[in-house]
Amino acid sequence: MTDQIDSQEPQEDEGDFGLPARLFDEVLDAVEAGDAARLDAIFEPLHPADIADLLEQIDARDRRALLALWKGGMDGEILSELDDNLREEIIQSLAPTELASAVRELESDDVVDLVEYLDEDQQSAVLDALAATDRIAVEKALAYPEESAGRLMQVEVVRAPEHWSVGEAIDFLRRAERLPDQFYHVMLVDPRMKPVGYVQIGRLLSKSRATLLRDITEESFRTFHVEDDEGAVAYAFNQYHLISAPVVDDDDRLVGVITIDDAMNVLDEEHEEDILRLAGVGGESELSDSVRETTKQRLPWLAVNLGTAIIASLVISLFEETIAGLVALAVLMPIVASMGGNAGTQSLTVAVRAIATRDLTTSNVWRVIRREVAVGLINGLAFAVVMGLVGLVWFGSPMLGVVIAVAMVINLVVAGLSGVVVPVVLDRFGVDPALASGTFVTTVTDVVGFFAFLGLASVILL
Amino acid sequence: MTDQIDSQEPQEDEGDFGLPARLFDEVLDAVEAGDAARLDAIFEPLHPADIADLLEQIDARDRRALLALWKGGMDGEILSELDDNLREEIIQSLAPTELASAVRELESDDVVDLVEYLDEDQQSAVLDALAATDRIAVEKALAYPEESAGRLMQVEVVRAPEHWSVGEAIDFLRRAERLPDQFYHVMLVDPRMKPVGYVQIGRLLSKSRATLLRDITEESFRTFHVEDDEGAVAYAFNQYHLISAPVVDDDDRLVGVITIDDAMNVLDEEHEEDILRLAGVGGESELSDSVRETTKQRLPWLAVNLGTAIIASLVISLFEETIAGLVALAVLMPIVASMGGNAGTQSLTVAVRAIATRDLTTSNVWRVIRREVAVGLINGLAFAVVMGLVGLVWFGSPMLGVVIAVAMVINLVVAGLSGVVVPVVLDRFGVDPALASGTFVTTVTDVVGFFAFLGLASVILL
Repeated sequence: MTDQIDSQEPQEDEGDFGLPARLFDEVLDAVEAGDAARLDAIFEPLHPADIADLLEQIDARDRRALLALWKGGMDGEILSELDDNLREEIIQSLAPTELASAVRELESDDVVDLVEYLDEDQQSAVLDALAATDRIAVEKALAYPEESAGRLMQVEVVRAPEHWSVGEAIDFLRRAERLPDQFYHVMLVDPRMKPVGYVQIGRLLSKSRATLLRDITEESFRTFHVEDDEGAVAYAFNQYHLISAPVVDDDDRLVGVITIDDAMNVLDEEHEEDILRLAGVGGESELSDSVRETTKQRLPWLAVNLGTAIIASLVISLFEETIAGLVALAVLMPIVASMGGNAGTQSLTVAVRAIATRDLTTSNVWRVIRREVAVGLINGLAFAVVMGLVGLVWFGSPMLGVVIAVAMVINLVVAGLSGVVVPVVLDRFGVDPALASGTFVTTVTDVVGFFAFLGLASVILL
Repeated sequence: MTDQIDSQEPQEDEGDFGLPARLFDEVLDAVEAGDAARLDAIFEPLHPADIADLLEQIDARDRRALLALWKGGMDGEILSELDDNLREEIIQSLAPTELASAVRELESDDVVDLVEYLDEDQQSAVLDALAATDRIAVEKALAYPEESAGRLMQVEVVRAPEHWSVGEAIDFLRRAERLPDQFYHVMLVDPRMKPVGYVQIGRLLSKSRATLLRDITEESFRTFHVEDDEGAVAYAFNQYHLISAPVVDDDDRLVGVITIDDAMNVLDEEHEEDILRLAGVGGESELSDSVRETTKQRLPWLAVNLGTAIIASLVISLFEETIAGLVALAVLMPIVASMGGNAGTQSLTVAVRAIATRDLTTSNVWRVIRREVAVGLINGLAFAVVMGLVGLVWFGSPMLGVVIAVAMVINLVVAGLSGVVVPVVLDRFGVDPALASGTFVTTVTDVVGFFAFLGLASVILL
């Protein structure tokens, strides 16, 4: 335990729990010196998650040298913490016996987590390394859809009939031969195995033995179905402050339990996906991805953006004569488009986030649209005044000022409107709004911005 | 309990745990009919978080009518779940006695959460409503810095001397007069009250009475200081799979405990802030904010963007003569800038996210920069070919194709480079990279894009 506490100190040096640079130097020195004992001593007090981070952050060449030196050190917990692509690479490099000893110590739900995105060969290599009962549990979990409650849950549940007293529950737990590694609640079930509530273990110790379990159940209780989406599960844990929740099958029978740490992981992953998708990066991107993988993730979105940029250019090309007549228009037109793009991104990010947190619903969508349009109008008017003056001062043309001012108001209103409507409509059609909204909205604001500005100019100025 | 289970059904109608539209209709009907009993019946089975969401999602006028009808229904838990601005509005509308009865039932750390962002008058109104001991606990917590571990922790801790056996701990718990509402661990302390480990309550029930507590402590254990940043706390919970963690004061004495549900909340809020800041919206934005508040949040970032857009326009104005000589340049130039902006946003979002998760550190920053530049180069070459052909076919000029192709390569490489370097440098100077990187990076890609394209054109084409 003392080791564990000490191991925290180096992190605190940076005041921030990231891995300290000193650790990397020490590890790389040990690898270069080929000193396996020193490497073991450095890794021994570290949490598996930190070792995984370290492996992700060093160069591929250093990593290969480290792994060659650190024979037999790799365990299942470190594998679980690795990015998907690195996990595959490292599993590939392990001998079958090493792999077997690494995964045997894991609980079955951790094995599911470890293997679910491996390719088939690697998956069966890991499954073959397991004891028969564990293998069956893992295979059963893998039969549930990806990202479902069934994959997330652990099958080991501490349960009790709803009519038991505290005393009966305590006696049962003390007699039980095998309890899960971590458990915080006893699930109450009716005679048909339907979960009807749950009791905190702490309550068992603080209430008299005669107290009925059903009288001390938690207030906040939600049941999930094995095929429920893990995102909905994470949302419910966050919304209803759940610590554990039962999972049932089609017959409403208790088949597993999901705990808050699983839900926290999912919440973190969903956020990561949202933020990356909004930026036009595949949600699966990892910092340890190779140049090739990274290029593959980003190219499609840049290609889509190229298409929309060409559409905007086509709009500009309609006004080539106008621009030839007054080059100042070419100088000023990106300002209108850029302001629209930014205002649209503001609105759409708020909308995408609110859809994800179930705060934007049919009940308030009209109110939010009205608000965004009003905000666009006010901001548009404010910047219309500014840009009108800039146009006047810079190019000495009052009418140019008027054109840019009016175009600005139009584009910011359209930005506010499309920033809400596009994600809401995409969501209604079952498309992830984080994935596609940005492109739509900036296309709209580019097209409207250029068209309004150049169109007005061609009418008013020439 | 049956009520609780039934209350879940309406959410499941939408398969998604959002509030069903039907619920809104029922509530608004009851309010219109002035039927307080019906309103009570609708709200009775709902979780406070759902009632808070409902209050946030209806119109301000409906909300006032609802609250007037639902006299005395408001409780502390609902107040805790509300958006900050609505919470202030509703607390304002409550009579002092109503407020007192609403907050008295809350635990002290929930009261801290409730009052920390209220204005001073409201804060003292709530504090005055508390019992003296609770008020002192809340005031003590408020003395810690905002967003610190000290504000997050609960002061009620179940602790035991490290030398106790399981039997001694169980006897102590059964005798204890007041235990926290929720607790999952017993903290072990040394004679000077320094926390040295913790034991799951479940272990107490599954081990023999003679087992020493120090022999069954959890492996993953981290201690926080009262002034640690809550973001670092949330990171550590996620990284090390913590369920509870002790908080100590300057003398290393145990003063409180943070649990995973608090950490999950913080993680969620930090993500929200990051995603909104990346989009140029203040991290405090709520969907229930008024037009005025929303305008105030968004205007500053649009103003910054206007400044940077004007800088880009100044670059264009350097080439007015070039554009006057060949208007096709004005048509094509936004494509180069737009592609650079998108590629830059991709890189910077990955970098900002990796900084937040401590995955991008001094150890791998050069490798990530090399990767981003390489990806920019490959994507740049791919789109250079495409745009070179577009330039040739559209405008029939091979040299125009070459100009746009070369400008594209230059701008995508610069985008990859600045997408990593800008957030890393901002972070090094203590500026939140999510807040400011976007503006910097798109300014760079706009300026470089316009300058490269128009500059090359002026040299090669004219």
